[in-house]
Amino acid sequence: MEYSLKSFEEYFAQSEVIRMNHYHVDGRLKHVMLSHQFSIQLLEELFDIADRVKEMTRKTNGIEFLKSLLGHKKAMLYFTQPSTRTFLSFLTACQMVGMDTGEVRDPSLSSEYKGESQEDGVRVFSSYFDIIIMRDPKPGFCEYMAYLLDNTGRSVPILNGGSGKDQHPTQALLDLYTIHRSFQQKDGIRKKRYAFVGDLLRGRAVRSSVMLLSQYKDIEMDFVAPSSFQIAEDLEKILHNQGVKINKTDKLESVLSKVDCIYMTRIQDEYDLTGESNNIDYSQFSLTTENVKKMKPSSIILHPLPRRNEISPNVDADPRAMYWRQLRNGVYIRAALLLYVFNVAHRLDEY
Amino acid sequence: MEYSLKSFEEYFAQSEVIRMNHYHVDGRLKHVMLSHQFSIQLLEELFDIADRVKEMTRKTNGIEFLKSLLGHKKAMLYFTQPSTRTFLSFLTACQMVGMDTGEVRDPSLSSEYKGESQEDGVRVFSSYFDIIIMRDPKPGFCEYMAYLLDNTGRSVPILNGGSGKDQHPTQALLDLYTIHRSFQQKDGIRKKRYAFVGDLLRGRAVRSSVMLLSQYKDIEMDFVAPSSFQIAEDLEKILHNQGVKINKTDKLESVLSKVDCIYMTRIQDEYDLTGESNNIDYSQFSLTTENVKKMKPSSIILHPLPRRNEISPNVDADPRAMYWRQLRNGVYIRAALLLYVFNVAHRLDEY
Amino acid sequence: MEYSLKSFEEYFAQSEVIRMNHYHVDGRLKHVMLSHQFSIQLLEELFDIADRVKEMTRKTNGIEFLKSLLGHKKAMLYFTQPSTRTFLSFLTACQMVGMDTGEVRDPSLSSEYKGESQEDGVRVFSSYFDIIIMRDPKPGFCEYMAYLLDNTGRSVPILNGGSGKDQHPTQALLDLYTIHRSFQQKDGIRKKRYAFVGDLLRGRAVRSSVMLLSQYKDIEMDFVAPSSFQIAEDLEKILHNQGVKINKTDKLESVLSKVDCIYMTRIQDEYDLTGESNNIDYSQFSLTTENVKKMKPSSIILHPLPRRNEISPNVDADPRAMYWRQLRNGVYIRAALLLYVFNVAHRLDEY
Repeated sequence: MEYSLKSFEEYFAQSEVIRMNHYHVDGRLKHVMLSHQFSIQLLEELFDIADRVKEMTRKTNGIEFLKSLLGHKKAMLYFTQPSTRTFLSFLTACQMVGMDTGEVRDPSLSSEYKGESQEDGVRVFSSYFDIIIMRDPKPGFCEYMAYLLDNTGRSVPILNGGSGKDQHPTQALLDLYTIHRSFQQKDGIRKKRYAFVGDLLRGRAVRSSVMLLSQYKDIEMDFVAPSSFQIAEDLEKILHNQGVKINKTDKLESVLSKVDCIYMTRIQDEYDLTGESNNIDYSQFSLTTENVKKMKPSSIILHPLPRRNEISPNVDADPRAMYWRQLRNGVYIRAALLLYVFNVAHRLDEY
Repeated sequence: MEYSLKSFEEYFAQSEVIRMNHYHVDGRLKHVMLSHQFSIQLLEELFDIADRVKEMTRKTNGIEFLKSLLGHKKAMLYFTQPSTRTFLSFLTACQMVGMDTGEVRDPSLSSEYKGESQEDGVRVFSSYFDIIIMRDPKPGFCEYMAYLLDNTGRSVPILNGGSGKDQHPTQALLDLYTIHRSFQQKDGIRKKRYAFVGDLLRGRAVRSSVMLLSQYKDIEMDFVAPSSFQIAEDLEKILHNQGVKINKTDKLESVLSKVDCIYMTRIQDEYDLTGESNNIDYSQFSLTTENVKKMKPSSIILHPLPRRNEISPNVDADPRAMYWRQLRNGVYIRAALLLYVFNVAHRLDEY
Repeated sequence: MEYSLKSFEEYFAQSEVIRMNHYHVDGRLKHVMLSHQFSIQLLEELFDIADRVKEMTRKTNGIEFLKSLLGHKKAMLYFTQPSTRTFLSFLTACQMVGMDTGEVRDPSLSSEYKGESQEDGVRVFSSYFDIIIMRDPKPGFCEYMAYLLDNTGRSVPILNGGSGKDQHPTQALLDLYTIHRSFQQKDGIRKKRYAFVGDLLRGRAVRSSVMLLSQYKDIEMDFVAPSSFQIAEDLEKILHNQGVKINKTDKLESVLSKVDCIYMTRIQDEYDLTGESNNIDYSQFSLTTENVKKMKPSSIILHPLPRRNEISPNVDADPRAMYWRQLRNGVYIRAALLLYVFNVAHRLDEY
């Protein structure tokens, strides 16, 4: 009658492919952990749901219909790592589909001071809520909890809301959804040239989105970064294997006029060990109204936000600036994901 | 294609009249910033809505009807300055009309540590929510954000929930609503003598309510305060220009039997620079059951709360004590304001 | 016209019986303060409501029906003492029956810094909400507030969510509800032998549950604790008077095979004055898969959670381990209590 549960280390000693298999049930995605869980087919299914959600939110009765879809479900927002924008995006996505929510945001308020293990703590949430949306600073914690809950009495879906330095799958979803919508009349996501600018080594949004993009055909990518913050070697290797054409440079000017999409990021100096960000001339990795003029008229500018100075607020009015729209798309695609995970998206036809 | 947005300083270099024009759209109030945006006509419209809301909350089906009115709207409660009572009053007002809410209360939890500007932060909220209710310690921030949002892609109404030392328009609304209800059988708000007692220099509730009251006919005002905390000169001038009869004194006894309404306030020593409140004999500016006996039987006692010792808890049972009722009126008038701002008050007729 | 309100000290100078009378209105429980307010008859009424609630939550239309029952009521969750699990249990119970909620969890965010009395603060909540669910570190505060609110203009029910060291009535309810369900086919709660293990002196859950259990017929209790943490003398006296057969020991082994239920608790070292917990060999008061083997097949294991090491996670898979179920039962019984307090439980028949 005893469990033979794997320890954290044993769990991650398994290959990613084996782990990813656990996150599907009956051929459907249950736990949303890694951006590369999303195939092109699944992405397009989600984009379609998100389009319909977005359309419905334009009318009062559409909003009310959406709220009727998951009124019987409750979500726990477990954000022990500070976050305002992702937290509120998930919160409003939950509200959009009618879910009640509870939250834990400040670990010091929790009962962990009483010596409870974090695993027990999360299991408590799974007893009260139907899904757990989780951002935790400990890399892999979210995946390990999904495994533990699946192997105890009460398993609920877990959505990774951003973990450690590496994964932020719903950010990747909203990035691709925004690209999809922007290029809808222009052959879609494929056959495009994408530039990623800034801190490409430590930005988890970039990593997740690059992985997703690499599935599409005829993609070319420019990585514009100070040499110390260029993309990780393992990621580069993966892209090579996928047949993605890659260029690395530290000259933003050299790519401006050539790309279809510029994805800007900020320098993630909260991950500095010895102040290594101080040596960077940020202005070389920033967009002003001046250099935006060199971009193609049909190109787009993305940014996962929050921004510092890497995009001048004066650029906001440019029709190619998509980052505020990208932010709102995050709510639609997250609402779509909730409808998918609870398998009620088909009910949208009833509207 | 570039914006030509005014800086904070440029914006406030404009006259108040010009700024106030921006806060109206199509002849209706959009942003609630300053108490003097409310004309007597608009006040009476709001009082009427609030009366009907209050009436409806007495019955289960009335409560349920109210909750159906704004179920398609979401409110952001952005309270970066500590507040329990105003926050909860707005929260319950939102719930009363069926709105979903999100909140930011502790600035340290926000993503501002990532170097985002507060302007970008608020713009994020406007992407997720349909209205922003805001209390921020920075004077004018709330007005400036309304201006910025109006001039960027996504403009939503902003309600000032109390800013800096000067403005707290919804407190003024609930004060006047309480006076209106108390004097409904006695000719209403006009033709009355009002005493304001306590810290009249630094209490933002007093300032806002005095401004609103001054619009009514045949008003006399007694300002009872230690000389160092008497009303500001600019406010006195405005009242003179409006034809309000004014008396200043530091003797509470001298006005007790003469006035129709006593508005008590606490000494706002959180604004002390050098402990100037320490020299005050608070007992001279306090109500006890003894001195309440000298008041007219038809008079009323108000207090914006929280109180310290300026009103003895023994006074609470006196039928003239209106401050607890005033607190509840705050929820009704705030719910009324939400119905007005989203232009659904006419739907109350359907009930 | 003056109140003659009792002071805190005067209030508690009254006998408990007199105080408990105040907590009933028209023969029904209004304020939930002490576990011994619950008679066996009332417990069975609540268990029956909870059973039906639990059953309904299995179906979407059952969940939706439950949410329609108290959609017209609002609850304040006032938790100035840290708590995650009890807080979330009450929150989800409120959501389950459709109530809106507001919360105060971090006293530093409150307006108490402005010098307001805590009594005024709670009265504010009673103006905004229809019920107050309260956990406060000050012993008796919750009871005293119920008294004050009953004797001022606006009285709302108060639920004690755990106060000081002594009372946690809804924990007792969920403990007994779990026992009731576990022994439903075996003559129910009576005629059983119960062991309580761990810190029996300072665990408020134990105290409340022991009091409730003692009402049932033919109960035997084993108290297994280090001698310095054995049950309080007053509690022992009460049990003697009720005719409960008692055994005290510090040998867990000696009772394992004899009892029908083991109620494990953790050592509450947060109440240590001089590190007195350090002298205890915890392993002597812990359950492992090894010693669980000695228990009767029909017996059950309870724990109020959070746990530390007093139950090995390997025990979780044992069918006798009821503590995770106990946690979920907490939501059902709290929802049942809300339906009872607002007197809408009879409406369950409409489903």
